[in-house]
Amino acid sequence: MAEYATIQPKTDLVADWERLFKVFIRPEDDDCRATLIKYMERILFGLHDFLKKNVGITEARSLKDLSESFTDTLISENPEKKLADVITCLIKEIAPHAVNVASPYFVGHMTSAIPFFMVHLKTIVAALNQNVVKLETSKVVSIIEKQVIAKIHRMIYDKTEAFYREHVQNADTSLGAFVEGGTTAAYDRAQHVSDVVVALRDLLSSMGAGGRITHQEDILPIDLDASNKINIHHLKNTISRLKTHSPRTCILAIVGIAGATETGTVDPLEQIAEICSRHKIHFHVDAAWGGATLFSKKYRHLLSGIDFADSVTIDGHKQFYMPMSCGMLYFKDPLSMDAIAYHANYVNRWGSVDLGIKTLSGSREANSLVLDCALKIMGAKGYSLLIDHGIETAADFAEEIRSRDNFQLVTPPELNILTYRICPRNLQNRLMRVGADERRQINQKLNAVNRDLQRIQREAGSSFVSRTKFKVNNDPDDEIVVLRSVIMNPMTTISILREILDEQEEIFLKQLQHLI
Amino acid sequence: MAEYATIQPKTDLVADWERLFKVFIRPEDDDCRATLIKYMERILFGLHDFLKKNVGITEARSLKDLSESFTDTLISENPEKKLADVITCLIKEIAPHAVNVASPYFVGHMTSAIPFFMVHLKTIVAALNQNVVKLETSKVVSIIEKQVIAKIHRMIYDKTEAFYREHVQNADTSLGAFVEGGTTAAYDRAQHVSDVVVALRDLLSSMGAGGRITHQEDILPIDLDASNKINIHHLKNTISRLKTHSPRTCILAIVGIAGATETGTVDPLEQIAEICSRHKIHFHVDAAWGGATLFSKKYRHLLSGIDFADSVTIDGHKQFYMPMSCGMLYFKDPLSMDAIAYHANYVNRWGSVDLGIKTLSGSREANSLVLDCALKIMGAKGYSLLIDHGIETAADFAEEIRSRDNFQLVTPPELNILTYRICPRNLQNRLMRVGADERRQINQKLNAVNRDLQRIQREAGSSFVSRTKFKVNNDPDDEIVVLRSVIMNPMTTISILREILDEQEEIFLKQLQHLI
Repeated sequence: MAEYATIQPKTDLVADWERLFKVFIRPEDDDCRATLIKYMERILFGLHDFLKKNVGITEARSLKDLSESFTDTLISENPEKKLADVITCLIKEIAPHAVNVASPYFVGHMTSAIPFFMVHLKTIVAALNQNVVKLETSKVVSIIEKQVIAKIHRMIYDKTEAFYREHVQNADTSLGAFVEGGTTAAYDRAQHVSDVVVALRDLLSSMGAGGRITHQEDILPIDLDASNKINIHHLKNTISRLKTHSPRTCILAIVGIAGATETGTVDPLEQIAEICSRHKIHFHVDAAWGGATLFSKKYRHLLSGIDFADSVTIDGHKQFYMPMSCGMLYFKDPLSMDAIAYHANYVNRWGSVDLGIKTLSGSREANSLVLDCALKIMGAKGYSLLIDHGIETAADFAEEIRSRDNFQLVTPPELNILTYRICPRNLQNRLMRVGADERRQINQKLNAVNRDLQRIQREAGSSFVSRTKFKVNNDPDDEIVVLRSVIMNPMTTISILREILDEQEEIFLKQLQHLI
Repeated sequence: MAEYATIQPKTDLVADWERLFKVFIRPEDDDCRATLIKYMERILFGLHDFLKKNVGITEARSLKDLSESFTDTLISENPEKKLADVITCLIKEIAPHAVNVASPYFVGHMTSAIPFFMVHLKTIVAALNQNVVKLETSKVVSIIEKQVIAKIHRMIYDKTEAFYREHVQNADTSLGAFVEGGTTAAYDRAQHVSDVVVALRDLLSSMGAGGRITHQEDILPIDLDASNKINIHHLKNTISRLKTHSPRTCILAIVGIAGATETGTVDPLEQIAEICSRHKIHFHVDAAWGGATLFSKKYRHLLSGIDFADSVTIDGHKQFYMPMSCGMLYFKDPLSMDAIAYHANYVNRWGSVDLGIKTLSGSREANSLVLDCALKIMGAKGYSLLIDHGIETAADFAEEIRSRDNFQLVTPPELNILTYRICPRNLQNRLMRVGADERRQINQKLNAVNRDLQRIQREAGSSFVSRTKFKVNNDPDDEIVVLRSVIMNPMTTISILREILDEQEEIFLKQLQHLI
């Protein structure tokens, strides 16, 4: 029990029925209630106080060092600790080594601060413990789910009032479904087309890690153009080529992305829609990241064409600021869930008028309740403030990067994600003049610098940007390492971003400049 | 806003930056802290007080009736309500129409009461909001995950201390993985074998709803024997037939189940293991339900042979009594995750020594933290008390059913699930004597009775058993409807089960007897 050594000595707790009953029946007397509430207070504020003090990736203890404290592989026969001690341990021993994703200086990933009420909502969902897989274990929650799915569907597709009146609680049709995790949402779609081919931009970023896709040979990656969008010309050529050379192959779907993981780029959805419509191909939009942009009257035009999509995935745990994890899938045609036999569980559930018949497995929690309440508490405008802030702060950040001689903006932000790197102005100029060999050599040196820079800054622990790689210049051997920022925390201001650049510049000038 | 009409008039809330900041920064002064805690108190006890009063499936308002109150499909531009009102509404308007899965009279599904500390733990996970997909967004939580996976692995496979010392925190090997939902756990396995064939018992119950499996033609269902276990004879024949007639077909996996959804049956794992070993076929055990039986020294022998499985799935939200939803997958061979390229995310994460490189999507919450804490609070013995109670109470229940003339025990409990039906003794005797046609006719009448019975009892709202169907007598046209009980709530006693039978008998005698 190395990790708890500092907290308490070995306990003499014993598992027995009396104790077991105590944890299943909530205590009724005032003292016990007060104790339970006190625990909740420690959770809410103990964690918070810690997180407030520790911006960035928290303290320096290395992963290797940490992992050596967690090597106890025997489940103790009797209880090791009481809830109170578990909470103390979590706050004092675990949280300090967790990642403070809520810090405004944490701008490296699609995980950020969430409104505090989300924690309350998640607690309610846990306390109700409804299993939405069956009406019998959820009842009203399934009805709320139908309603909130209709709300988001309406935000995407904006059909008529009559359409929604017909479908919102229609047991025979389906406007969408909650699934577990965004990858699953994308993945399930892919599975349904794996007998045929799917064309999509940039396999890895929109379909999740390659290992999860069984039939990669059925996926045709489409090139990206200079602005990191799907190359429409290459898409058209791919379709023509298939039609000519493999007339028996059916292209079942084309996937466009609205907010690419790496760059935040939005594919030309209207153009893809037009191609899909002409060739009668299913058009899927992966809006896991960008979907919430639809909340913003000012910026929803960036997703123009999304309403032509036959299906759309959106992640609640991204720009809906919900806790992990909540994937959603929407269908333009309320009958398409039947047609593609997407999700037998779900169909069964709504289709089964006679509630006695149980459906099988597929347990999941009532995330719809969290989303429904969040929409009521935030309003579309509340979300829009967050979206606008992200997009506008990212634009300001891009300007700031452009204005500094040591930095190069690599992918300007279309939504609220951008990439850049250390690349002093003189090298930027040289890169434009030199041949491929020399260019690769320079980039390799710059890659080493940016890789080290990101690591040094992360380890310093006061801020965090992530790092990724792109192939550039249509040269498979020319890859550049870039720093990546995702601006979604409303507390992340341009002055914080300037501080982050200052720190990077200082690290570069003091420690890394000699490498180039 | 029909559903909230009784709670409050239209509000005049406005979304602005001031309000937005308030929900992202937890309030610091004592008054605000007190308010937040008060909300939590209402969640913990308001819900509880309600649930205590309402056993069974809660009140009578029909789903159709309910669904008519949830037809608002427009997201409000400004906030509709504050957190306090959302909580009030959830407690007063939503919870009464939710299902009280925590009632000891709710014995129809694999969802039940959970220890109250689970709610606290889930709250902690939400407050930390770590995304376990990346070390960068989870850090110590990933390390805890490795450790708790080793603990459960050890419970299943019981390898040497040296083995666990080597692998518990080994970045290059993997003893298992958390996945989202049990269906996904089973499903992911299936995907990896979908180029070849998999033999398994009872396709639907162990693989989840059929619609989620793309290549059903690659799945070979194996017959069940009279005790609802995989028919070893048929399994052997199927393998021989394939080897003879399709020598180029590779059987990639055979799936055995440890706790079938319908009946709780455990397949003859040792025998299947022996066959798999002889033919070098991957042996997967779906222990989503039954895995926790390993906690019980008294009953773990019921899962004998599970340690021969190459992989095992277990659901945390079932007999580990965790909130929805937590699937887990374990591997006998710590290198097999590489070999089958199961879960690239996970491998990447642990394999990537250099933390700068982000992995792609696959967000999920830190369920490992909940499981780790639950094991510490309960101890193996605490879980064992629950398991033993379920198995022994189910055995008592079976005896009680056998002792009543109007009931027939259809599948005796091996773990804690059993099925039975209304079938008066005289009909039971007749069914043994008559030919196929008459047998089917009698069964059809009994089916109508049992179907109605289950519905009437459910609608009465004081208790709940589920209902399912079996094919019997190797006759595809002879299906019987049975009532199904799952005994997992420690508050469910034999006297409660007797009350449930009394109620059923009364419904039968007063309302349904004339049908047969």
